[in-house]
This record gives sequence, structure tokens and C-alpha cells, in this order.
Amino acid sequence: MHNNNDIDILISEVGPRDGLQSVKATMPTELKRQWISALAGAGLREIEIGSFVSPKLLPQMADAAQLVAHGRSLPGLFVTALVPNLRGAQAAFEAGVHKITMPISVSEPHSLSNIRKTHAQVFEEVRSVVALRNTQFPHIQIEAGLSTVFGCTIQGEVPEDDVIRMAVTMAEMGVDEVGLADTVGYANPTQVRRLFTRLRDSVGTVAGSAHFHNTRGQGLANVVAAIEVGVTTIDASQGGIGGCPYAPGASGNIVTEDLVYLLESMGLRTGVDIERLVAAREWLQRGLPGEPLYGFIPDAGVGKNFHYAKKDA
Amino acid sequence: MHNNNDIDILISEVGPRDGLQSVKATMPTELKRQWISALAGAGLREIEIGSFVSPKLLPQMADAAQLVAHGRSLPGLFVTALVPNLRGAQAAFEAGVHKITMPISVSEPHSLSNIRKTHAQVFEEVRSVVALRNTQFPHIQIEAGLSTVFGCTIQGEVPEDDVIRMAVTMAEMGVDEVGLADTVGYANPTQVRRLFTRLRDSVGTVAGSAHFHNTRGQGLANVVAAIEVGVTTIDASQGGIGGCPYAPGASGNIVTEDLVYLLESMGLRTGVDIERLVAAREWLQRGLPGEPLYGFIPDAGVGKNFHYAKKDA
Repeated sequence: MHNNNDIDILISEVGPRDGLQSVKATMPTELKRQWISALAGAGLREIEIGSFVSPKLLPQMADAAQLVAHGRSLPGLFVTALVPNLRGAQAAFEAGVHKITMPISVSEPHSLSNIRKTHAQVFEEVRSVVALRNTQFPHIQIEAGLSTVFGCTIQGEVPEDDVIRMAVTMAEMGVDEVGLADTVGYANPTQVRRLFTRLRDSVGTVAGSAHFHNTRGQGLANVVAAIEVGVTTIDASQGGIGGCPYAPGASGNIVTEDLVYLLESMGLRTGVDIERLVAAREWLQRGLPGEPLYGFIPDAGVGKNFHYAKKDA
Repeated sequence: MHNNNDIDILISEVGPRDGLQSVKATMPTELKRQWISALAGAGLREIEIGSFVSPKLLPQMADAAQLVAHGRSLPGLFVTALVPNLRGAQAAFEAGVHKITMPISVSEPHSLSNIRKTHAQVFEEVRSVVALRNTQFPHIQIEAGLSTVFGCTIQGEVPEDDVIRMAVTMAEMGVDEVGLADTVGYANPTQVRRLFTRLRDSVGTVAGSAHFHNTRGQGLANVVAAIEVGVTTIDASQGGIGGCPYAPGASGNIVTEDLVYLLESMGLRTGVDIERLVAAREWLQRGLPGEPLYGFIPDAGVGKNFHYAKKDA
């Protein structure tokens, strides 16, 4: 587990996975290493370092194992990776991740369209992964990242009961954490408060992170709501890369730089240094020349009255 | 007073004032009229229609009186205007506004730099305006729009006690409403909750609207916080025009289109039709060709599971 007694909110940086797998270009491994080092150096404690999928499907992610090794060499960094199936889990476990996240669509039409699997087939996969972990890699954590939780572009409305039922199923299967993701940027703060409250009521300490997209500009508003109801891990990506950017100018993921500013301004310690975080963009820009990066703080800077959160402030 | 029993949150559209006075070009009066009609037609109940200042200073606002007359011709529209001094107040009252807003810097260095007036001089002006209203225009409302409330680019930190003291002074002088404005985009949700709570505790029903800028991307996050502590009027501008945009791509004001989506998704009725609101951008684009407009909803559209808020939802 993390040793994060000196922070209030854990930011899980998903740029190296969610960001880099969404762009066509492949960032060279050496620049990814430098970028990950810079992100960790800025104070980020958890980084989703890549995706263990077929390199034919996502050549951008072919170096996931190398990056896990690099991440493990950085002191204090918690290294996670995305894993869609047993084969990926085996590879990730062997590479030495601290945690894997398995994406699970609550919407079955989305699951079928996205990974061509029914819920029954997905459950089978999760069972095998948990069994493998339990027998051979007992110290590695498994997170179920429930997607299409706040609505789905195919199914439309996703009943909240379906979300909670899926969360309970995952907890019963033995995952350590269930996170909720707004895959398509539909979430609103009222819904966020309600669903994360129900999640905690249903699965207790297995209730996990919030993953919001900024497709409709509502990302940070949803973060405020999630924090109010006790969520302590928030996903974000540097420069907002990845997610599902719908339109030019619309970032996909919420922007780590703006999130750190929000949280620290609110008196919530993240452990992240904004200046060093903004400086880390340089590696991303070198690695993905011409790729648009988002965020207000890199341009506007912090306010003149800004100060970092203090303990018990 | 407004008759707004059928909405939960009043959006005060400030684009025709805050937006148009911030751009160099002057939008032709006829197009302003069409734009204001389209905004009102989309369901906006309150529009800040212009600024009663010297046309030498702000030629963009020279047609304020004509636009007030136009606004008054639109059924159900509450017509407001910005007024910096007694002379402007006289003109606005005679033009037939429902309400004026007088901007009052809590930071005295900001007041001196912005309008070359000490607090004592500002108070003198407010007293004269209230006296004029009381004797000759008793039905017109006066709002004090406190600025630099959440921090100041000149003074830095602005003590919250100074904000509350200023609010109480304004209430004692007889203004009907005291709003709080984040002039430079420094506000955070924790501070927003604290200050609006203290404002209501100090001046009761005189506590007024929230005016946030999106300079650091925190605008809608601050709206969520303001609503939680009972604020029911939120300022915004179509396309985010105006405010203090710091950097390219950074809107100044919060974007009305995205705000309506946020509120309606949360189950809070605004009375605004998103499709008609987005269509109103056409007039703004015609009136200010080439001026960048912001907002996610005009590009991304509403979610497939979106529905407007219902009473007691």
C-alpha cells in the first residue's frame, strides 16, 4: 500500500497510459522515461505507466514492461498499468507493477463494442486474473476501473443500480479497489456525489478513485463533488492528453496542472510542486511534437495570493 | 423584483457588458439588439446590457441607453447595467434599467489603479447614487459588485474581514444587493464556501450573486461551491467573452453554455434552452467577426443521457 500520510489527495497520473495510447504517434521510450522521471520528481506518487495489450493493437504501448522497470527504480513511486485480460495481467505482474487496473464497462453494449466481450466473459477474465494474483503475486493490487458509469454514448442512461451491482460483483471477486470512470464526459456533480456515496456504502474501503473526463468542461466541478463525499484518489493527465477529446480545444482528461492548483488552493495537500510539474511538460512536448497540450495554469500561472496547503490548514 | 418561482438558479448574462467592453471592436447596435433578443429568447431572465460610462472611455458602450430601451421591450427580461458613478447612475435610471451594479474594489490599491478613487471617494459616490435612487427612482435596484474579493493582482491576499466589512458598509448605505466577484480568477471552492457563508451571515438577504472568472480553469468548480452554500444568482457570459482572459485559449468569464449544462444536469432549473442559447452565438459571431468564443457544450453537445431539470427532481 501507499505511504501517503503526508498528503490529503492522491493524484494518479494517467498521462503515460491514457494519454499516450490515445495519440497516433509513438513517444520514444527514452523520452517516456525522462517524462515519467520528471512527473515523479514533481511529486506525483502514482503513475499509470502503460497498457499491457498486444503491440499490434497499440504499438504506442509496446514498451510497457521497460517503463515499469524504470518506474520501479524511482523511489516512492507507485507503479500501475492498465490490463484488459489474463495475458496482459501475467505480463504486468511479471514486469513488477504495484497495481493493475482492469477496465470494466458497466454498459454491456459498450463492452461488446469496445472489447467484444459480454459481461459473463469479462467476469471470467477477472476471476482468472484474481486467481493468478492470489497464487503467484499476492502483493500486487487489482483495481476494477468501472467505465461508462455516468452514462454511455451507445446505451445513453446507465442505471445507477447497474453500477453498484457491478461494483459489488467486483468486490466479491476479490479486487482490492473499485474506481468509477466518466468515460464520455457525461458526469455532473450531483450524480458524482450520489454514486460515490452509494459506492462506499456498498463496498466500504474497496471504494476507489474518480476518473473524470473534461469533454464538456465539467471535470474540476466533478472533482469538487467527489472530494466532498470522501474520494481521496483522483486521476488526471498532464496537459489533459488522452481521454476522449471530442472537439478541438477540448481536453479529454482533466489536466493535472489545473487539478493540483485546485486542490492545493482548497487546502488539500497533493505533494506536487506546480513549477516542477509544469516544467515536466517539456518532455511531453519533445516526445510528441505538435500534439496540443491543455491547461490554464501553465499559461496563467498561480495567483499572487497562492500558497501550498499545509497540514491541518 | 424578479418573478422566478419556476427556476432554481438565476443566470445573469453579462456578455453584452463585461464581454463587449473587453474587446477592442465595437459591435454594431443593431446586431447587439438581435443578440440580446436571442439570449432572452433562449430563456435568460437577466442581462447586463451595457455600461453607463463616458463614450470617450469606452466607445463600445455608447449605445447603452438604446439597448436598455430594447431590453425593456422584451417580455420578462430584467435589464441591468454597470454604473461607475453618479453621472452614470442618473443616465441609467433615466434610460429605465431595472437594476444597476456599481463595481467596488475591496482592495484599495486596485481601486486607485482602476478608477483613481480611494474608498472614501467611492463611498461618497455610492451615497449619492442611493440618495438619487431613493428620491427619484425608488423602484430601481442597486447592487454593489464587490471586486478583488478572492485576491488581487496588485495587493495579493485580500483579507476576508475586509470583504465582509465592505459588504456591511454597502448594506448600511442602502444598496439592495451585494455580489462577490473574483476579478482575477484566484478563487477556490473552499474560499468561495467560506466567503459566501460569511456574506449571508453578515448582510442576510442583501447577499447577492457570484461572479467568477475562468482564468485558471476553476470557474465551474467555484460555481458548485457557491451553490452549495445557497447562492442563487450566477454571472456568466456567452462564449466566455470578457473577464480578464490572461492567455490564448483561456476564457475570462465562465461560459454561459457550459454553466447551463452544469446546472440543468445537476437538477437545477435555469429556464434556459441550450439549443437556442448555442444558436444565439451566431449574432455574437456576426457582430464580432474573428473574436474567439469559448465553451465545451457548443462543440461537444449535451450528453445522450441529458435531460433538463424538473421541479422537485
